[in-house]
Amino acid sequence: MINVGVFGATGYTGFETIKIINRHAGAELVFATSESAAGQKLSDLYPVPWDIPLAPAADAALDRVEAVFCCLPHGASMPAVIAARKAGVRVIDLSADFRLAEAALYQKWYNVPHAAPELLAEAVYGIPEINRAEVRETNLLANPGCYPTSVLLALYPLLNAGLLAVDRPIIADSKSGVSGAGRKPALKTHFVEVNEDLSPYNIGQRHRHVPEMVQTIKNLGGPGDQLIFSPHLTPISRGMLSTVYVSLAEDLSAEAAQALYAETYGDEPLVWLLPPGQLASMAHTQRTNLAAISVTPVNARQLIVCASIDNLGKGAAGQAVQNFNVMFGLEETMGLF
Amino acid sequence: MINVGVFGATGYTGFETIKIINRHAGAELVFATSESAAGQKLSDLYPVPWDIPLAPAADAALDRVEAVFCCLPHGASMPAVIAARKAGVRVIDLSADFRLAEAALYQKWYNVPHAAPELLAEAVYGIPEINRAEVRETNLLANPGCYPTSVLLALYPLLNAGLLAVDRPIIADSKSGVSGAGRKPALKTHFVEVNEDLSPYNIGQRHRHVPEMVQTIKNLGGPGDQLIFSPHLTPISRGMLSTVYVSLAEDLSAEAAQALYAETYGDEPLVWLLPPGQLASMAHTQRTNLAAISVTPVNARQLIVCASIDNLGKGAAGQAVQNFNVMFGLEETMGLF
Amino acid sequence: MINVGVFGATGYTGFETIKIINRHAGAELVFATSESAAGQKLSDLYPVPWDIPLAPAADAALDRVEAVFCCLPHGASMPAVIAARKAGVRVIDLSADFRLAEAALYQKWYNVPHAAPELLAEAVYGIPEINRAEVRETNLLANPGCYPTSVLLALYPLLNAGLLAVDRPIIADSKSGVSGAGRKPALKTHFVEVNEDLSPYNIGQRHRHVPEMVQTIKNLGGPGDQLIFSPHLTPISRGMLSTVYVSLAEDLSAEAAQALYAETYGDEPLVWLLPPGQLASMAHTQRTNLAAISVTPVNARQLIVCASIDNLGKGAAGQAVQNFNVMFGLEETMGLF
Amino acid sequence: MINVGVFGATGYTGFETIKIINRHAGAELVFATSESAAGQKLSDLYPVPWDIPLAPAADAALDRVEAVFCCLPHGASMPAVIAARKAGVRVIDLSADFRLAEAALYQKWYNVPHAAPELLAEAVYGIPEINRAEVRETNLLANPGCYPTSVLLALYPLLNAGLLAVDRPIIADSKSGVSGAGRKPALKTHFVEVNEDLSPYNIGQRHRHVPEMVQTIKNLGGPGDQLIFSPHLTPISRGMLSTVYVSLAEDLSAEAAQALYAETYGDEPLVWLLPPGQLASMAHTQRTNLAAISVTPVNARQLIVCASIDNLGKGAAGQAVQNFNVMFGLEETMGLF
Repeated sequence: MINVGVFGATGYTGFETIKIINRHAGAELVFATSESAAGQKLSDLYPVPWDIPLAPAADAALDRVEAVFCCLPHGASMPAVIAARKAGVRVIDLSADFRLAEAALYQKWYNVPHAAPELLAEAVYGIPEINRAEVRETNLLANPGCYPTSVLLALYPLLNAGLLAVDRPIIADSKSGVSGAGRKPALKTHFVEVNEDLSPYNIGQRHRHVPEMVQTIKNLGGPGDQLIFSPHLTPISRGMLSTVYVSLAEDLSAEAAQALYAETYGDEPLVWLLPPGQLASMAHTQRTNLAAISVTPVNARQLIVCASIDNLGKGAAGQAVQNFNVMFGLEETMGLF
Repeated sequence: MINVGVFGATGYTGFETIKIINRHAGAELVFATSESAAGQKLSDLYPVPWDIPLAPAADAALDRVEAVFCCLPHGASMPAVIAARKAGVRVIDLSADFRLAEAALYQKWYNVPHAAPELLAEAVYGIPEINRAEVRETNLLANPGCYPTSVLLALYPLLNAGLLAVDRPIIADSKSGVSGAGRKPALKTHFVEVNEDLSPYNIGQRHRHVPEMVQTIKNLGGPGDQLIFSPHLTPISRGMLSTVYVSLAEDLSAEAAQALYAETYGDEPLVWLLPPGQLASMAHTQRTNLAAISVTPVNARQLIVCASIDNLGKGAAGQAVQNFNVMFGLEETMGLF
Repeated sequence: MINVGVFGATGYTGFETIKIINRHAGAELVFATSESAAGQKLSDLYPVPWDIPLAPAADAALDRVEAVFCCLPHGASMPAVIAARKAGVRVIDLSADFRLAEAALYQKWYNVPHAAPELLAEAVYGIPEINRAEVRETNLLANPGCYPTSVLLALYPLLNAGLLAVDRPIIADSKSGVSGAGRKPALKTHFVEVNEDLSPYNIGQRHRHVPEMVQTIKNLGGPGDQLIFSPHLTPISRGMLSTVYVSLAEDLSAEAAQALYAETYGDEPLVWLLPPGQLASMAHTQRTNLAAISVTPVNARQLIVCASIDNLGKGAAGQAVQNFNVMFGLEETMGLF
Repeated sequence: MINVGVFGATGYTGFETIKIINRHAGAELVFATSESAAGQKLSDLYPVPWDIPLAPAADAALDRVEAVFCCLPHGASMPAVIAARKAGVRVIDLSADFRLAEAALYQKWYNVPHAAPELLAEAVYGIPEINRAEVRETNLLANPGCYPTSVLLALYPLLNAGLLAVDRPIIADSKSGVSGAGRKPALKTHFVEVNEDLSPYNIGQRHRHVPEMVQTIKNLGGPGDQLIFSPHLTPISRGMLSTVYVSLAEDLSAEAAQALYAETYGDEPLVWLLPPGQLASMAHTQRTNLAAISVTPVNARQLIVCASIDNLGKGAAGQAVQNFNVMFGLEETMGLF
């Protein structure tokens, strides 16, 4: 049994992480932190019968855990990560703070200087289906954003096979549930503003998830700068669908395209490749920790890959626990079904 | 053409009031105030192509209007009403500030002393279908709350006929859309918290709309203290349904019950009495300024009256303009269809 | 490991039953039937990766199972139940076919003669929290309707204590998610008709769940004929909230009321009694097999009891498996968390 | 006052057409047909207080009208159009039956032979902002599909200026409300199936709106075969958003792109070009007859154009009445605000 702590337990990703740990056969929750709700119990904040006490981060018993999940907002996560690493605790960081390899790029997109550039070198941006070996060894796992997880899983087989045309746009039209925007009240997440609307936002390369996707596409040898990413907010609590349009460097038949994805993901327990003719929708993965993927050819040089994840599952807490399982040599799906 | 102003233009009721005035053949909007958005235009806050400028309340041109609609929160409304009345401007106040006849009762329920108890005497709590003559004469119209409008319209024919049992509870189980909670962001109106949930709140006589209902029932000679009122929040943007259970003082046949309601409301242009067998639902009145009412007998002594309104229509801005029309001798439905 | 079969696997209750069995440590699914989808797999009908084959009921291997769950519509369930009982298989019937003790009453409400009145005598209408001992012994368990489960759990402590006033109405104002209406397409469940609406239906004692509630209240010594039941359809996929208004035969303090419920349900693993001040909402039980209950006094003689269940969980499949667990001497919550 | 009739009054587009005619100062409804609801009134089918009688199409008084709106499903519309034209009545056909210029193409996509190929020659596929002059003269107006209206309005300024790259894909990722799927109950429009899901369908050039878009793009001199069209169903009653990704033949600055759209649409009363920095969302046009358009450059050669319409407004009934107004020389926006 591995003792773990959760920083930032009261946001949606923190709560979801605790839900998974609660049913995880190999992990035991030792502490859960919250600044705003310190002194309260989790059952005071969510409609669940769990009397988990919440303490300020300063009281976190880092000496009693082997791993921590940091579910804090970007910026706020860095101090917790630094403290945990100093205490020799392995970290799964769900924030954006350790996703970008370059401190300058972080500062450009997040408007704050990076507080621990020396830790960036040891951080691993981890999607087990893509770089499981690296995940296994790291002590500082940067858990990818929800949008990047969906887009990168859609692209990976093509990137791996070197099949993307280098001079054509890769267009990721993504649709997200509202929980991805966090639990802090704001006009943009007010029920009346969101309900019955569907709205693009931060399109034209203005979303903070762009640089981590570009970085990973390039790391995998692909044309990262060709990525055009358009997020949309949808009146749905949980879920994400990325419709990804790619141009290929060479002709690929429908059968070959499907076979490529089957070869890549056939043995992956948390990727569900749909058979030809079925299209991935949010419902395929809602309230699961799976990614569902469908491959639809337009013609020999154009594919549409639909990737569905739950933004709190494979898009956040689910993938965080999957990474934790890999890091600690546990069965990869423990707690995730 | 009557010149009017709107205090508090950026909340849901203020915006709805302006929408109605914009298509009203007898009213012209002269000013719209907002403290938080002063200097902006309405089109900066809502997805509408209306460049209506917003100014602070202190700049309101009271000398250029004959009437104002106060769409401010309770407490904040009193100063605007006082200023308007001082300037000789007739007021339709959509807040709770002038609904309760007794200043002490106001203070008990709203936790602030009343700033203008002397104006309470001239204020008229106005539902035209109930007290049109009083509405016509007043210079200070207290526009009823959304819940009270639905419940009182459901009860009025029975109150008027003296048919309610005095020793039995009147149970109003009400369901409201989220816009009734206002536009200010809060956890309770966060999309993810509201969506897919239905929740009672402030039941057990704790809702601030209780005293205005009790007061009106008593004014109409009924057993106000028998009212049990239970509001519920529903994952719907606009709409309200009150399911009202009453016990009768004497036997009443289904036909007589229906006839009583037909007699009361048959000539009312904004009350839609449904034929026997049809039940009022939110859809009957959504995005309208109507009330829809259905009468269902359980037995000779028990009725279920369902009353549907749009909480922003007949429940707020629509009734405010209806009252304005009555006050100024205009056609009562002007701007309301 | 107990082998079980499911009749009617493709409706919402059948699918939910299979979801629970799939994670149940003591039950193994041997067959799943469907007439309309015979020859297909469950994954052809739902977005799940389960290749469970569907066969016509005529092919059901009754000789290979110890128990069956009948998830067929009323009327269609009777033949399956008769066949199963003839084969000596214990039955949990989720339809209405064996809920009413009198065949004539069944015929009156369901418009078909009862096909097996002799089996009615051995059938047990089972809510473990109310009649666990009877459930344990029966071979034919009539699983209660969703509305009755919520209303009866709300009333049971008062019925058990003989506290209900015999001459006052018991008013159950219930709100249901749409999955309670079944998966068969109909205008009333069309997205555009349901979305943004909230509608009463079959009020005035016209809903088929009335007689099973009346029967049970009377069996428990209460004034069944006083029940007034008003169902409402809400734009929510899953969930149920019953707001129940009762008059008491004697004075009861808030503390005594809460204590009565705590005494009754304190040891029940699937009933979650909320502390004073918290109100049961749909969110408390959604996608769980729990009932959540809150008790709110209006005055010494009036209580409002809110009961929340998931209509497919404690309101159908969850309670069915709970009953199965009791019948077979398994841990009562097996598969239900 | 122009007398009109409506064929197919009970579907969503027929009902919406009647709603507009009801408030139209220049049109009078003479008949409304329905086969399934013949003999009933519109108020029997929708929650509105309009006692408009419904008659079978065979009883349509074509001799008493100058124009008809055909709101029937494809295939069913042809006989009504033929009859109307035979009677000398001008037709606005909202179905797909007269949108494609070639009968063979119609048969290929709709699986039925065209019943009146000779009428195809006189039919005008009409979007007033694109071909107002043709609309004015025609006696048979083929009202475009909702998806094509949004996509073509997004593309038109670029097509008109010859700015689209001929060798690059035009990607239209479209999201639709559920009313676009019609009112006939089906599993795909069941509340529980749609709610909380977002699903692509008929992607990979399988949607029937593809050929009318390709045809129009080509008619305007553009690379129609480059269109890749991906529709998605969203849990929203009304609304449509098309996110359109185009590659340009030459460099275009952000200012020049915005200016091009302003020049094209600046005087159009029903197109709302958003200022730079605002993005079109469904809310901009919901329950209106407007199109809202925003232009977002990615770089000098890539634009993202977002086009929002109400699928029943500018996407169906609103545009139909706009076309009617043009055909009869009325003010173009009559009835549409």
